[in-house]
Amino acid sequence: MPGIDRACIEAAHQRVAPYLHRTPVLTSQAINQMVEANIFFKCENFQKVGAFKARGAMNAALQLSSKELEMGIATHSSGNHAAAIAFAARALGSRAFVVMPETSPKAKVAAVQGYGAEITFCRPNLESRESTLNQVVERTGATFVHPFDHEHVIEGQATCGKELVEDAGAKLDAILAPVGGGGLLSGTGLAAHFFSPGTIVRAGEPEGAADAIFSFESGEVESAAFISTVADGLLTNLSERTLQYIRAHVKSIHLVNDTEILAAMRLVYERMKIVIEPSCAVPLAAVIKHRELFTGQNVGIILTGGNVDLARFGEWFGDN
Amino acid sequence: MPGIDRACIEAAHQRVAPYLHRTPVLTSQAINQMVEANIFFKCENFQKVGAFKARGAMNAALQLSSKELEMGIATHSSGNHAAAIAFAARALGSRAFVVMPETSPKAKVAAVQGYGAEITFCRPNLESRESTLNQVVERTGATFVHPFDHEHVIEGQATCGKELVEDAGAKLDAILAPVGGGGLLSGTGLAAHFFSPGTIVRAGEPEGAADAIFSFESGEVESAAFISTVADGLLTNLSERTLQYIRAHVKSIHLVNDTEILAAMRLVYERMKIVIEPSCAVPLAAVIKHRELFTGQNVGIILTGGNVDLARFGEWFGDN
Repeated sequence: MPGIDRACIEAAHQRVAPYLHRTPVLTSQAINQMVEANIFFKCENFQKVGAFKARGAMNAALQLSSKELEMGIATHSSGNHAAAIAFAARALGSRAFVVMPETSPKAKVAAVQGYGAEITFCRPNLESRESTLNQVVERTGATFVHPFDHEHVIEGQATCGKELVEDAGAKLDAILAPVGGGGLLSGTGLAAHFFSPGTIVRAGEPEGAADAIFSFESGEVESAAFISTVADGLLTNLSERTLQYIRAHVKSIHLVNDTEILAAMRLVYERMKIVIEPSCAVPLAAVIKHRELFTGQNVGIILTGGNVDLARFGEWFGDN
Repeated sequence: MPGIDRACIEAAHQRVAPYLHRTPVLTSQAINQMVEANIFFKCENFQKVGAFKARGAMNAALQLSSKELEMGIATHSSGNHAAAIAFAARALGSRAFVVMPETSPKAKVAAVQGYGAEITFCRPNLESRESTLNQVVERTGATFVHPFDHEHVIEGQATCGKELVEDAGAKLDAILAPVGGGGLLSGTGLAAHFFSPGTIVRAGEPEGAADAIFSFESGEVESAAFISTVADGLLTNLSERTLQYIRAHVKSIHLVNDTEILAAMRLVYERMKIVIEPSCAVPLAAVIKHRELFTGQNVGIILTGGNVDLARFGEWFGDN
């Protein structure tokens, strides 16, 4: 096993705290009645850059040398990690070089530009991302901070689950996070393991980007058979590293389809009046679909981010 | 002048508090930087029924006799007051009879039905509303609680401004509310007068439902020359009663068009990650349009509600 322990997460939490929000944990009577459980929503949509990704990026950036910060920080990301790296670089007086798929939501591109990062667009596939990133690193000398396959990033993401168990005000029976590359899910599993033993960690994954569930079962990093989902933050495969953490600390992964994801998203908008992006709604969709697993329980759900193109709501929620 | 005084509002506040949320006052660094003022958003989108209207409806319902409650409560409303009356009736073991325009947003109709009210649809004009309401009252014997032309309703709405000045944590130079029938604006003017003397109250009004601004100037209740706006909660004229309160306690009314309203709405979604309805965005649009009036000031804005059809976002925020 790689080596993130309790002290690593505590140190990460102290390191990032001055730069980030301690986001609220909210509840909804209406949703609790509907699912017959007590859900505690950790609202990372209110986090800096509108997503939990600020945690991992800031924790990684804070451990770069002053020489490295001078050369800048590079990454590839479908959006929120890009904004997070740009935010962290600006906060520390560094520069950010970001490779983004040309299909990224406009709100995410605008946010990254707003933080002053230099953006290089690539084709929306892993090969193009990586080759473009390599070119950027070669040109600039910047340090690459991977969106999830990075110990410091995972430590940073773990601070979210740590705050959730500290702030829920009740012992959590379960915590759910969405899974894309698995950085947040790894961190959440680690946080529960160290700070709330006995709390079961589960994940929600889109049917239209179903790789983690198969990797989890086989023990090998698998790819999705096809990619087609509204949950645009969850398209990537796991890495060997995140797969190990997830197999060690996560109990189950549950698939949900886009109809279920959008229904859960709509529920959060209509009942909680907060803005979340589709990837966020995946764990709640899993709770609604498998409510028998959670009946009567205290369930933490990480609402991962709120960066969403309002222009797409017609397509998602329109009557036609 | 009609007779709402400080003690009336204090009594209303004590009366309704057990049934309602004390909603948070939120701030946004990004929006403050943009408008060069410190804005304190009173988030009535998080209120029971998703709107400030719960305050006035509950304050009125709590002053009905047990005999009256037995017969039920009737009203006409484009949406949020309807839900508020239905909520208040249910909370007090009464029944609600609601006349709604057939054009009301689906989310609002569903909310009213969800609270168990009996809905009668009418044509979307004042004559049809009033005649349909009269039929309902005649049939049921229910007590009519007007959406705004009612002292108890205005007292209830005044509790919102009272909480805002108590919770902002800074002396407010100005408070802005939107104006439709003027119940909230009357209450806000009264609240500032009694609980924060020196705080100037201003209003935002849609260009496509511009009646209050002319009534305010002429001293007579005027109608809008035309009705065409996304701000579906602000379509009604003032009453003699609300006009009097507004002329006594409000300094100015500012018109904004739908483009400005939707831009302000989008800003709240993207920067604050909270769900508001278009009517809500009118005061912020007015601040953005007339920022010279507010530069460097502490400005309270009442975000009135969060009940919105997500299906319409494509039309409002789409690229075409």
